[in-house]
Amino acid sequence: MLNKHGNIQNFLGCDSDYANAQIVLFGAPYDATTSNRPGARFAPAAMRGESYALETYSPYIDKDLEADVAVYDAGDLELYGRSPTVVLDMIEQATAEILSDNKTPIMIGGEHLVTLGAIRAAYKKYPDLHIIHFDAHTDLRQDYLGEELSHATVIRRCHDLIGDNKIFQVGVRSGTKEEFEWRKTHLAQTLEHFIGKPVYFTLDLDVLDPSTMSGTGTPEAGGMTFNDLLNDILHLQKFNVIGCDIVELAPNYDTSGVSTATACKILRELILTIGGTQNG
Amino acid sequence: MLNKHGNIQNFLGCDSDYANAQIVLFGAPYDATTSNRPGARFAPAAMRGESYALETYSPYIDKDLEADVAVYDAGDLELYGRSPTVVLDMIEQATAEILSDNKTPIMIGGEHLVTLGAIRAAYKKYPDLHIIHFDAHTDLRQDYLGEELSHATVIRRCHDLIGDNKIFQVGVRSGTKEEFEWRKTHLAQTLEHFIGKPVYFTLDLDVLDPSTMSGTGTPEAGGMTFNDLLNDILHLQKFNVIGCDIVELAPNYDTSGVSTATACKILRELILTIGGTQNG
Amino acid sequence: MLNKHGNIQNFLGCDSDYANAQIVLFGAPYDATTSNRPGARFAPAAMRGESYALETYSPYIDKDLEADVAVYDAGDLELYGRSPTVVLDMIEQATAEILSDNKTPIMIGGEHLVTLGAIRAAYKKYPDLHIIHFDAHTDLRQDYLGEELSHATVIRRCHDLIGDNKIFQVGVRSGTKEEFEWRKTHLAQTLEHFIGKPVYFTLDLDVLDPSTMSGTGTPEAGGMTFNDLLNDILHLQKFNVIGCDIVELAPNYDTSGVSTATACKILRELILTIGGTQNG
Amino acid sequence: MLNKHGNIQNFLGCDSDYANAQIVLFGAPYDATTSNRPGARFAPAAMRGESYALETYSPYIDKDLEADVAVYDAGDLELYGRSPTVVLDMIEQATAEILSDNKTPIMIGGEHLVTLGAIRAAYKKYPDLHIIHFDAHTDLRQDYLGEELSHATVIRRCHDLIGDNKIFQVGVRSGTKEEFEWRKTHLAQTLEHFIGKPVYFTLDLDVLDPSTMSGTGTPEAGGMTFNDLLNDILHLQKFNVIGCDIVELAPNYDTSGVSTATACKILRELILTIGGTQNG
Amino acid sequence: MLNKHGNIQNFLGCDSDYANAQIVLFGAPYDATTSNRPGARFAPAAMRGESYALETYSPYIDKDLEADVAVYDAGDLELYGRSPTVVLDMIEQATAEILSDNKTPIMIGGEHLVTLGAIRAAYKKYPDLHIIHFDAHTDLRQDYLGEELSHATVIRRCHDLIGDNKIFQVGVRSGTKEEFEWRKTHLAQTLEHFIGKPVYFTLDLDVLDPSTMSGTGTPEAGGMTFNDLLNDILHLQKFNVIGCDIVELAPNYDTSGVSTATACKILRELILTIGGTQNG
Amino acid sequence: MLNKHGNIQNFLGCDSDYANAQIVLFGAPYDATTSNRPGARFAPAAMRGESYALETYSPYIDKDLEADVAVYDAGDLELYGRSPTVVLDMIEQATAEILSDNKTPIMIGGEHLVTLGAIRAAYKKYPDLHIIHFDAHTDLRQDYLGEELSHATVIRRCHDLIGDNKIFQVGVRSGTKEEFEWRKTHLAQTLEHFIGKPVYFTLDLDVLDPSTMSGTGTPEAGGMTFNDLLNDILHLQKFNVIGCDIVELAPNYDTSGVSTATACKILRELILTIGGTQNG
Repeated sequence: MLNKHGNIQNFLGCDSDYANAQIVLFGAPYDATTSNRPGARFAPAAMRGESYALETYSPYIDKDLEADVAVYDAGDLELYGRSPTVVLDMIEQATAEILSDNKTPIMIGGEHLVTLGAIRAAYKKYPDLHIIHFDAHTDLRQDYLGEELSHATVIRRCHDLIGDNKIFQVGVRSGTKEEFEWRKTHLAQTLEHFIGKPVYFTLDLDVLDPSTMSGTGTPEAGGMTFNDLLNDILHLQKFNVIGCDIVELAPNYDTSGVSTATACKILRELILTIGGTQNG
Repeated sequence: MLNKHGNIQNFLGCDSDYANAQIVLFGAPYDATTSNRPGARFAPAAMRGESYALETYSPYIDKDLEADVAVYDAGDLELYGRSPTVVLDMIEQATAEILSDNKTPIMIGGEHLVTLGAIRAAYKKYPDLHIIHFDAHTDLRQDYLGEELSHATVIRRCHDLIGDNKIFQVGVRSGTKEEFEWRKTHLAQTLEHFIGKPVYFTLDLDVLDPSTMSGTGTPEAGGMTFNDLLNDILHLQKFNVIGCDIVELAPNYDTSGVSTATACKILRELILTIGGTQNG
Repeated sequence: MLNKHGNIQNFLGCDSDYANAQIVLFGAPYDATTSNRPGARFAPAAMRGESYALETYSPYIDKDLEADVAVYDAGDLELYGRSPTVVLDMIEQATAEILSDNKTPIMIGGEHLVTLGAIRAAYKKYPDLHIIHFDAHTDLRQDYLGEELSHATVIRRCHDLIGDNKIFQVGVRSGTKEEFEWRKTHLAQTLEHFIGKPVYFTLDLDVLDPSTMSGTGTPEAGGMTFNDLLNDILHLQKFNVIGCDIVELAPNYDTSGVSTATACKILRELILTIGGTQNG
Repeated sequence: MLNKHGNIQNFLGCDSDYANAQIVLFGAPYDATTSNRPGARFAPAAMRGESYALETYSPYIDKDLEADVAVYDAGDLELYGRSPTVVLDMIEQATAEILSDNKTPIMIGGEHLVTLGAIRAAYKKYPDLHIIHFDAHTDLRQDYLGEELSHATVIRRCHDLIGDNKIFQVGVRSGTKEEFEWRKTHLAQTLEHFIGKPVYFTLDLDVLDPSTMSGTGTPEAGGMTFNDLLNDILHLQKFNVIGCDIVELAPNYDTSGVSTATACKILRELILTIGGTQNG
Repeated sequence: MLNKHGNIQNFLGCDSDYANAQIVLFGAPYDATTSNRPGARFAPAAMRGESYALETYSPYIDKDLEADVAVYDAGDLELYGRSPTVVLDMIEQATAEILSDNKTPIMIGGEHLVTLGAIRAAYKKYPDLHIIHFDAHTDLRQDYLGEELSHATVIRRCHDLIGDNKIFQVGVRSGTKEEFEWRKTHLAQTLEHFIGKPVYFTLDLDVLDPSTMSGTGTPEAGGMTFNDLLNDILHLQKFNVIGCDIVELAPNYDTSGVSTATACKILRELILTIGGTQNG
Repeated sequence: MLNKHGNIQNFLGCDSDYANAQIVLFGAPYDATTSNRPGARFAPAAMRGESYALETYSPYIDKDLEADVAVYDAGDLELYGRSPTVVLDMIEQATAEILSDNKTPIMIGGEHLVTLGAIRAAYKKYPDLHIIHFDAHTDLRQDYLGEELSHATVIRRCHDLIGDNKIFQVGVRSGTKEEFEWRKTHLAQTLEHFIGKPVYFTLDLDVLDPSTMSGTGTPEAGGMTFNDLLNDILHLQKFNVIGCDIVELAPNYDTSGVSTATACKILRELILTIGGTQNG
């Protein structure tokens, strides 16, 4: 009756051990550079807790977390109260470790800055890295109040690394005039040349309309529905996704729990979609 | 000035006496088998209280609760703290009483298990009973952790009674692989043969997308809009609806009150739609 | 099984009929002059709904609502959206009706202005009326932004009617310097001469510390504990209380429900205390 | 470092001085006639506070609040606790002052009754005034519980002033049968003849579906999406908008903050759309 | 950097393995018989998550969870959706297992009914079992709406087992007249004879005043302060506590998180107090 | 009618201009090093907004913000998204500016780290600076996860500057064993020698019991009541307070608004107490 081997809490159905896992989940509960409303730090724990209200089976793609993919949940990096530089180093190191074991990392943020740590690791392994970026916001500022490491500059920092024409944005509807101008010449305008290339998928949940995702730091009206996003995720099967993240859930702002439940469902679909597609 | 005859609180516009009523409302505030988030017990009282923010008139079908239909509100059955067996007996008895007086019962849940009590009574009167079931979830498990009476098994229990090809599901998007397989061979794939038959309509409000209905125990992204559901309800005029229920509102999870207000509006439309269509 | 006589919702244990009642409850859901945070309009319905979590028996005074006192609950006056003048007339008329039938009125506010309507009726029957006033605020302004009928002026308006030395305040800790000066010369400094006189008891729940009563329009730190107030209420047995009210619960500001539950318990104790003490 | 000139809080980017402003914002924090849920009084302050989470730039129309329009934010009129008659006079006077200086007023409510004050001023300057009215509710009652000045009668009062065929309603889905009948013969059925005429635009935010705007006094399912409304606002460029308002945000009912953020975005788009179109 | 051994989530500082533990924690997330407001099922997970905001060190008794006691956290029994009979059997079995290994069980409820399962196991090992019961409510009903297994009858059921004069209640302030009468003759009136006997300590957190513990199903004004309870817990050192529980936290009703944080602190003090005192 | 000079929002009654002010308020909305629950960044704006529900007059000390003290409110420093080093420099500079003009600074945090910036400025002007520190937590760690600038180390950093026997703590009830040991030898055990010395008063609001102050990042049961704290503040008249702050209100965690209202009242009393006592 009594479990005598430790109170292990994974995301739903992610109970593989590390050695046998194809995918490795980890949490990056950090939100210190958030300029608007903090709370993304609470996302990984909230998602694990709420995930058990979902079924492990997806009728959308007829696959099951328990039967069709092996996922290990490594828990959270201990990031609270640290400086951005240290935080990015820790995330880079954890991601590199997963990649070097030929597994696919999925990071649960945290604010969007955490993506930079994962991209640094991915870029070291895959110098031809491409990024698909879903977001309401451009995140392309050169600096934010003088700080170069910020959730508002993160994609610009990624571009610093990987260069022109390798980042594709979906759902963007907020930014400065300068950002909108800049992206016209530096970012990719089409996804065609991403096929066959190593792709990192970064999903800022505020790409969803706030009616679906109110639990986020900076909700921005006019976004995608859940079904829009679900369809786009299912299309990731066409790409060689070598890593991904899901960021900016701030569960505390949605007391109904719907934002967290929806994030969990998206993560289930994302795992089931990219399970089996990673680079061999 | 002072009302000296008792503080009667009905659902909006449902102030017929019993003898003259065509429709009889009652509440079934029960949620003890809820496996995820409880709170459906609060729905009947919340809906009565909030209903007064609505108009009695529906511009959608140009009918008015005060002028065009006679409804009696019987208040709630006293179900808190009882075992599922007793609860289902009480609901069956109340429903049977209404049906034997040739009135149409509308039950406000409570969790979905309460439907089974009403179906038992309806099936005794109408051996050829058919069920139209709106829900996000299949509710077709054989048992749930060994318990056969559960919100997660309720439609399977209904099928035990009425048999194959008599249940039609709308909006389902969550379940086990086994449930999705099972329904292919046991449930109806079309509504055509339901016309002219006695039909019970059971509406689990989580069929709506959580953006519209966050106040429910297990919100499941990717559902209907309000207008989708409204149109489907208006189409019920084609059927011989002999009873119905509206279940799984858990008003406490939506502090904005929108879920409750929306449930009230759906109930108004449901009353106005089936008023006049019951079996004579 | 089925109740066929109407969905009557009273405050816990207040199910006497009017003719046999010693005490008559009624709600005055009005908050239009509230200068800070509205919501007192929701108090009567919230209190009736929550009252059923209480026992009918009070171990403090060993009396029971079902056995030891006859109370009729007349429901609410329909006050929303009306002007203060009309509202006060309606309350005065309802109170007068109860008093003329030799019953004791207990009004559930609403904001504090509603007290004035009840006092007008009480003063007509009892020209020697005295008032015991529990409140965090003086409520003694001559006018508020030019308006003479306001929750901030209500006790001054009562004083206009009944004169000096007949109002005793408890718990006051907020007001203008002018109000604090004025009360020194116009209000009673002791309760001794209230004994034997007809007394109206008006209880603004913000007299309680906000740790106990956060659900009120203008919470003011530094107030009474529940046990302080309970003791004071039990001491009302020494007075000839001919009417009372309990005002300024704004249940929407306390999502824990504690403020409403506490207000219900206070009302239970108040009913059990003054039951049997009214003027014959 | 230290600001020594006062803690000025404007709506985002609205920091013109009065003399140079093309548009003048002001708040009308009033909700005393609200018949359902109060809280619209909190809207102007909430919107100013939340507006800083938005960018000043609109990618929808490629204009920027800081570069392309001069707006002065006059703060709020002091309306709490006053009678409707006084409130409407104060609003009329403020609006008249702005119009007489050949600036465009934009009022942030408050409940919908506040519109009447602005319309009175606008009608005095523009006897051929037309009104475009977005709302879920008809607001066309002759009186509400005997009161002629109410959020439920406000458009009827406007019609009393300006007459038949000059008011066009969008999004209405709730009212009495009488109101729906009345509007067929008294309101405009098309917008064609509004072009070239002075137009006042009044936007009750409950025209939006509650999934997008839960923070309002009387949410009514079945409304517009944000993108629907955005498109309609952009089309206002075709009209000579001489004043407008945005009313019935009740931010307290949406604890996620999404309703307020969305209202701010709508106001940004409204300012950028009508900036440059006012009557010369 | 990366944890490759599983995402173990214990209560703060309770990371002993089973074999070496002196105390074994486990959760009993069950609330199906709750007659008022459900939610106690959420307590164990909420307490583990929030516990990390506490220090492991107690300045009150100068002991530290990491240095001075060995505790194993066994996680939760899987109780949702089961019948009371099964639930009590599962709890009895888990408790018996811990006791038979000569460790002290601490159970985190769940509603109060769960205590009965633990008491059954404790009584089998210790036929002279005594119970110290902290609660706002008597919990001494013979049945509740006909059900004998209920949170409202649990202490009566315990008495059925262990008999007269062996249960001592602290903090009780709500019940029926019958319950208050019954306890005078059947429960202990003093604790003196408990010293040296095996004692089970059951703590219903609603014994605390709702100002301190609003997150509970049935808050009852007039209770203990935190410091009152802390002092009483420290006095448990005088007794031979062979098991205990902490029940009826319903974290969802206190959105401030204070109730959960306070429950965690109480559990820390309880662990540090009884660590070292159990029967050998 | 219309204000044409800008929408100035000060804390209640703090409308002096800078030149004539005796006290200068400013906000430090920063919470990036918070290790537990963020939100202190929202405090200054929330307090200004809520302050208008208070009276300007204090009956406790018979003084009035409008008549008896001249306060200038400088608004907030723009700190979001910056690194701790920059933030502390900005605060130090602002505080130094106020002190050099012979005015008394009062800072509204923000998390507790902001105090260090103010202390640096105060120490430069007053080399014999003493600190009175109210807090639930010791805040005496040498570092927190390797970071030396943190809300958990702030008083240790102050001690680094000013040395032994110059800091007196009140209300501390949480910390590591090492911190409790360290303070015995480095901090002052009595306040006697503080009289006549320049004193900085830093008030972490979590010194209050969570029943009174739930809106804070790390609520810790067992704290002061409001009246306890009020009395202590009134006793500050005995000291030469040359600056102070009030930190760690996180208004978002207390949806009742009580925490913010209480913080405002404390600030009113603090202003009225130290007004007139600063060093000449």
